[in-house]
Amino acid sequence: MTGQRADLEKLRSFCAAVLLAAGADTPSSAAAARSMLHASRLGVDSHGVRLLPHYDMVFRGGRLNLSPKMHFDRKRSGSGILDADNAHGALAAYAAADHACDMARDAGIGAVGISRTSHFGPAGAYAHAMAEAGMIGIVMCHSDSFVRLHDGAERFHGTNPIAAAVPTADGNPWLFDMATSALPYNRVQLYKSLGRDLPENTASDANGIETRDANSVEMLAPLGGEFGFKGAGLAGLVEIFSGLLTGMKVSPEILPMGGPDISTPRDMGAFVICIDPDGFIGRGLLLAGMERYLTALRTSSSRTGGRVMAPGDREWEEAKHRKINGVPLDPETVIEFERLAGRAGVEVPF
Amino acid sequence: MTGQRADLEKLRSFCAAVLLAAGADTPSSAAAARSMLHASRLGVDSHGVRLLPHYDMVFRGGRLNLSPKMHFDRKRSGSGILDADNAHGALAAYAAADHACDMARDAGIGAVGISRTSHFGPAGAYAHAMAEAGMIGIVMCHSDSFVRLHDGAERFHGTNPIAAAVPTADGNPWLFDMATSALPYNRVQLYKSLGRDLPENTASDANGIETRDANSVEMLAPLGGEFGFKGAGLAGLVEIFSGLLTGMKVSPEILPMGGPDISTPRDMGAFVICIDPDGFIGRGLLLAGMERYLTALRTSSSRTGGRVMAPGDREWEEAKHRKINGVPLDPETVIEFERLAGRAGVEVPF
Repeated sequence: MTGQRADLEKLRSFCAAVLLAAGADTPSSAAAARSMLHASRLGVDSHGVRLLPHYDMVFRGGRLNLSPKMHFDRKRSGSGILDADNAHGALAAYAAADHACDMARDAGIGAVGISRTSHFGPAGAYAHAMAEAGMIGIVMCHSDSFVRLHDGAERFHGTNPIAAAVPTADGNPWLFDMATSALPYNRVQLYKSLGRDLPENTASDANGIETRDANSVEMLAPLGGEFGFKGAGLAGLVEIFSGLLTGMKVSPEILPMGGPDISTPRDMGAFVICIDPDGFIGRGLLLAGMERYLTALRTSSSRTGGRVMAPGDREWEEAKHRKINGVPLDPETVIEFERLAGRAGVEVPF
Repeated sequence: MTGQRADLEKLRSFCAAVLLAAGADTPSSAAAARSMLHASRLGVDSHGVRLLPHYDMVFRGGRLNLSPKMHFDRKRSGSGILDADNAHGALAAYAAADHACDMARDAGIGAVGISRTSHFGPAGAYAHAMAEAGMIGIVMCHSDSFVRLHDGAERFHGTNPIAAAVPTADGNPWLFDMATSALPYNRVQLYKSLGRDLPENTASDANGIETRDANSVEMLAPLGGEFGFKGAGLAGLVEIFSGLLTGMKVSPEILPMGGPDISTPRDMGAFVICIDPDGFIGRGLLLAGMERYLTALRTSSSRTGGRVMAPGDREWEEAKHRKINGVPLDPETVIEFERLAGRAGVEVPF
């Protein structure tokens, strides 16, 4: 990637300052910045600071509530619904993770359905927050239609991610964050720019017919190739938890993320589950087990030219590198940041 | 499939009678038969009555406890561990599902880690049991190593299935049951008998190198093809819940299902989560949402020659067919059933 690099803390301040200038309150700006920096720090650039211009636009457009009054309705000792009042999705998801952890300390497991929320960026950010509290975290969210069903020929589910994080003794959690589509859309864009064929069974054209030409891609395939019912089923599970247990829309009903309507709230949902290891085998034994398991995994034999890694291993290595060398910004983001900096009256972070 | 067909109820009685004759107590025999019949009824023959000779063998061999005294330790309002005392996995999983539902009615969500359990057959059976109680059920279990890691060259995780069931207004739940491997091993056997090439990126030879020749398969690939870190990550999540939150072994440590050792308990775990819709949006609104969602899904456009289905649609259709026409038994199972019937002194069910 060509372009500038930016220091992590400068980036965080810049993102928060731009959203404050857009009118968002301090908690909303800080949560959005924290979430984007989670992704930018770990190398998940598709869900990092690249999203800042989008969030700026939808705060200004009215889709997002600049000063939400969220309300948590704890229905049982381990369950409840957080009405996010059309907050930024990151503010809602961090709050839901906190409520889920509080309930898990009490009930052993806690789950929060989030209603009236919005795009929350990297699902892993909120799972990570729970792991930092010593808990196992699971996070799901639906989104507008972009993935066909198994044997389907139109966009139906969103990329409907599932993330999970598990604490380890060495500090960096086991951290897993996947879309239930066969591949991420940014991979399509990458293959387009490289002129490479897409892998088998990963994307379709406007008629739902499989294509390996990145230029013809109009929808993604569900994870699983010939066994795409697996990816579609996982996406459905995410849909049921995020959209239906919260009383929200389902993916095909959700307004497109990119507009043109940027003033109407999208009635999206998300779902957060927190597990307290002390409600099961206990934290000490879980951490000892994780160490035994991860050692076996990392020392198992790998194919020539490959390397066996646990979920998160690549990302934590990248985080170490980016802490020293900063975050690379693609040229388009650099231009957008200059525009946003000018309007907000703040300095660019590079 | 050639061979005999057998009536569902006759099959259930036969399975239970054979296990009783092997020395298993009535609850164990009934639970194992119920679980096998779940799969045989729905057309999931790999996890159906084909397993009876295996269960007969391991009850007689001593691996399974003929008369287990299971103990549930409820640690919090929504969490606990069921010590299965080396019971048949089906007895343990049905009991865990009951405990999870009881806790979910109280806490909104309930989760049970099962320790000292054994092969439980179809994960979907226990998710289905929870959906029949009006709940959302999630079930996971690990197993002995058979799937390589992403970039791995040896067997590591088991096929580590995840199942989920969600109640619907029309009676048959949304029912999802998947292995986290790229394909099921019985598919390899099928392709072998058909002389067909396996799909890309689904299996490897003894050196961990990809093979499309079913005769060379020594391990399966994780779900996801080029993005196999997704399947491996999901398998890892199953491993952590099943093996580590319960204090049990992890997949590479588990004795092989098929022996030669059939007398030593395998120290396996499993995990069950139950969600009470009334702890979230409420049962009525969930059912209404499911109907809206499933109608949209089933009427969305499909590719030529394909048909869009929700998880379980194919299985419930097959169940209707099998209720009338019986369950097909492959020739090998017919021979085994004749042997078992002779030893147990009961009639064959066909």
